[in-house]
Amino acid sequence: MYQSHYFVKTLREPPKNEVSINAKLLEQACYIQKLMAGVYTYLPLGLRVLNNINAIIREEINNIGGQEIYMPAMQPKELWDKTNRWEELSNIMYQFKDKSDHLIGLATTHEETITSIIKDRINSYKDLPFYLYQIQDKFRNEPRAKSGLIRGREFAMKDLYSFHQDEEDLDEYYKKSMKAYFNIFSRVGLKSIMIEASGGAFTKQYSHEFQVLSEAGEDRIIYCPKYDFAQNIEISKFKEEDKCPKCGRLLKFSKGIEVGNIFKLGTRFSQAFGAYYLDKTGKKQPIVMASYGIGPGRLMGAIIEVHHDNNGIIWPPGVTPFKVHLIDLCKQKNNPLAKKTYHACQENNFDILYDERDVSPGIKLKDADLIGISVRLIISDKNKDKIELTYRDTKETSHHSLVSVLKELKKYYK
Amino acid sequence: MYQSHYFVKTLREPPKNEVSINAKLLEQACYIQKLMAGVYTYLPLGLRVLNNINAIIREEINNIGGQEIYMPAMQPKELWDKTNRWEELSNIMYQFKDKSDHLIGLATTHEETITSIIKDRINSYKDLPFYLYQIQDKFRNEPRAKSGLIRGREFAMKDLYSFHQDEEDLDEYYKKSMKAYFNIFSRVGLKSIMIEASGGAFTKQYSHEFQVLSEAGEDRIIYCPKYDFAQNIEISKFKEEDKCPKCGRLLKFSKGIEVGNIFKLGTRFSQAFGAYYLDKTGKKQPIVMASYGIGPGRLMGAIIEVHHDNNGIIWPPGVTPFKVHLIDLCKQKNNPLAKKTYHACQENNFDILYDERDVSPGIKLKDADLIGISVRLIISDKNKDKIELTYRDTKETSHHSLVSVLKELKKYYK
Repeated sequence: MYQSHYFVKTLREPPKNEVSINAKLLEQACYIQKLMAGVYTYLPLGLRVLNNINAIIREEINNIGGQEIYMPAMQPKELWDKTNRWEELSNIMYQFKDKSDHLIGLATTHEETITSIIKDRINSYKDLPFYLYQIQDKFRNEPRAKSGLIRGREFAMKDLYSFHQDEEDLDEYYKKSMKAYFNIFSRVGLKSIMIEASGGAFTKQYSHEFQVLSEAGEDRIIYCPKYDFAQNIEISKFKEEDKCPKCGRLLKFSKGIEVGNIFKLGTRFSQAFGAYYLDKTGKKQPIVMASYGIGPGRLMGAIIEVHHDNNGIIWPPGVTPFKVHLIDLCKQKNNPLAKKTYHACQENNFDILYDERDVSPGIKLKDADLIGISVRLIISDKNKDKIELTYRDTKETSHHSLVSVLKELKKYYK
Repeated sequence: MYQSHYFVKTLREPPKNEVSINAKLLEQACYIQKLMAGVYTYLPLGLRVLNNINAIIREEINNIGGQEIYMPAMQPKELWDKTNRWEELSNIMYQFKDKSDHLIGLATTHEETITSIIKDRINSYKDLPFYLYQIQDKFRNEPRAKSGLIRGREFAMKDLYSFHQDEEDLDEYYKKSMKAYFNIFSRVGLKSIMIEASGGAFTKQYSHEFQVLSEAGEDRIIYCPKYDFAQNIEISKFKEEDKCPKCGRLLKFSKGIEVGNIFKLGTRFSQAFGAYYLDKTGKKQPIVMASYGIGPGRLMGAIIEVHHDNNGIIWPPGVTPFKVHLIDLCKQKNNPLAKKTYHACQENNFDILYDERDVSPGIKLKDADLIGISVRLIISDKNKDKIELTYRDTKETSHHSLVSVLKELKKYYK
């Protein structure tokens, strides 16, 4: 992609109406644009990152048997009445009337919808277990949405729902989902901590949260530096100086960004909707359920909060919008080595953004830092027939032939 | 994909609360499920088809320079006030208040949003032309939504917006877009007719509609049997017996499903939002715009209306949810030839649904007809070591070795 043809129009200054680092950087670098508080457009660069995150999520969720579906945002009040959540969630759900005076709510979550879908299509224990998920936009009537992509009023969510014969089968899958979640966070470049949590607004049942340590976090979390799995530690019981009851290490307190959560729903929803199956003895049983959420947009915000410096974004290689940012700093336009490098990267399936704009080297380098693509290749008169390769995170620089550049890229993105 | 593990649970009868053929077949065959009038969930099979349609749209729109973005559904009233469309569209727009008593509308279209986005990022004629599009959900407060996927209250839309220096540059791109549209409809298996149309609710300017002939259509259209391009024929002037002013052929009247439309917007939106550029002489000029819509879900509905028989759906090869439906009718389970065929298709990148369920041959064949995958392979005791290949549309049947089946598939899906 030639940068002069691409819709990457960076701003000289970060936007004044944002307080969060992720929104400031993402808007300045032309990844997103604010439409109103907590509501953002994904511009071409931003959508590329979001799609990379979604692809990782899909791969890991498909790996644990997930089948993708797509449910609507608009849901009738009657659906929510079955679980008494029309009133319960009215504080955060956008609710309005259609032309025929029917009450409609914009989805904050989809337990009701999914249960209503499966109830008439599942009959027997032979149909169980199965796992349905979607990546779909949710809406929440948040009064204060000042954290950029971290707390949106309209935001993408990956929500997976699992359906089981009994608690035992659910427990097994619940553990698998934990592993998939850790894989997802690690592949997008985040270290996550799992914490046992209360149910919150959506369920009173047993649940776990996945947190990423960050000053931008809204939650105060406690964790043992030894464990990724911090479950079975009850938060309320501990103070700053306390020790881990498992290993004796001093516990740490920190701010965390919640990037995922998993809930055991039990039979609350299946009983409300009459979602039963016939067991081996022919007896009617309620389907046992769980739900599993990740916000891909929030994940993108969290990545920025963790990975940036004073000059801009530092994308982890798993989600970088392009694999290579090629920058031609030569005085003479259309440098042959630059063109050759561009085509070689394309042929080797390394998505590449090629800055061939007619602007000063200073602007090009400043934009490249801001945009934050993981690997930068510089062609310049100074470098002659060598290509300068710089990693955005370590700032480590080396000089290569084209063959050697391709080797480096293959190693880095393996 | 093993059918016993896949969420394809067909219904014995078509749903009673549907009148349209597309909804009846798609719900019975487990592609979609109705949540309320005009609001549907895409189940795994349905999402596969929708993704296939979207992939074709993306390819053709990327080919004419489109860059993909993703805009929000929720939009503030202030945005629509700039073009006086808050009132104008209030009849079809869901409008409500948030917690802070700000008025919000759910997107029926995105001209206002896109113009507000680009206005601060575009300065010079050097930045033009460019083309941004999205595939995103729209909402319309339709009082009667009885046509299944053809008239939704919540539905996916591909909307492309183009930005130009002048009318001349727009005209050139507008023609390119017509070609891309014809490509899209042809690749999803539809013959389309282009008709000059009035602007409708969204613009008073010059526009064109793309129509697919079908009894399920809501529009009465007139066309010359010779032309795909029926532009420059003013509908109101003609009666049933009239002749084409261009070629003298008898004009035909028919019902049509509108599957796409393209609008020249001129400078209406750029002037309302102050989206100007500096021309070569340094003079401020309003950006000239056009918008281009296709509803992927509606397209899916239209495909069914055109391609079905009494037994079920007949998917055109470009959008079929799986390339192959493999059906094992042998008495003994786990037939080796079936397994070998399954793996060979996977290795050759033919997505395959493998019906290895423990149900009668009658149920398997009835389901296969209903689901409508383009190519069916039958392994049976009767066929011995031969594989029976049947095309869903022509019902043409032949018998092959595995090698020969793969050859046939490659030819068919080329």
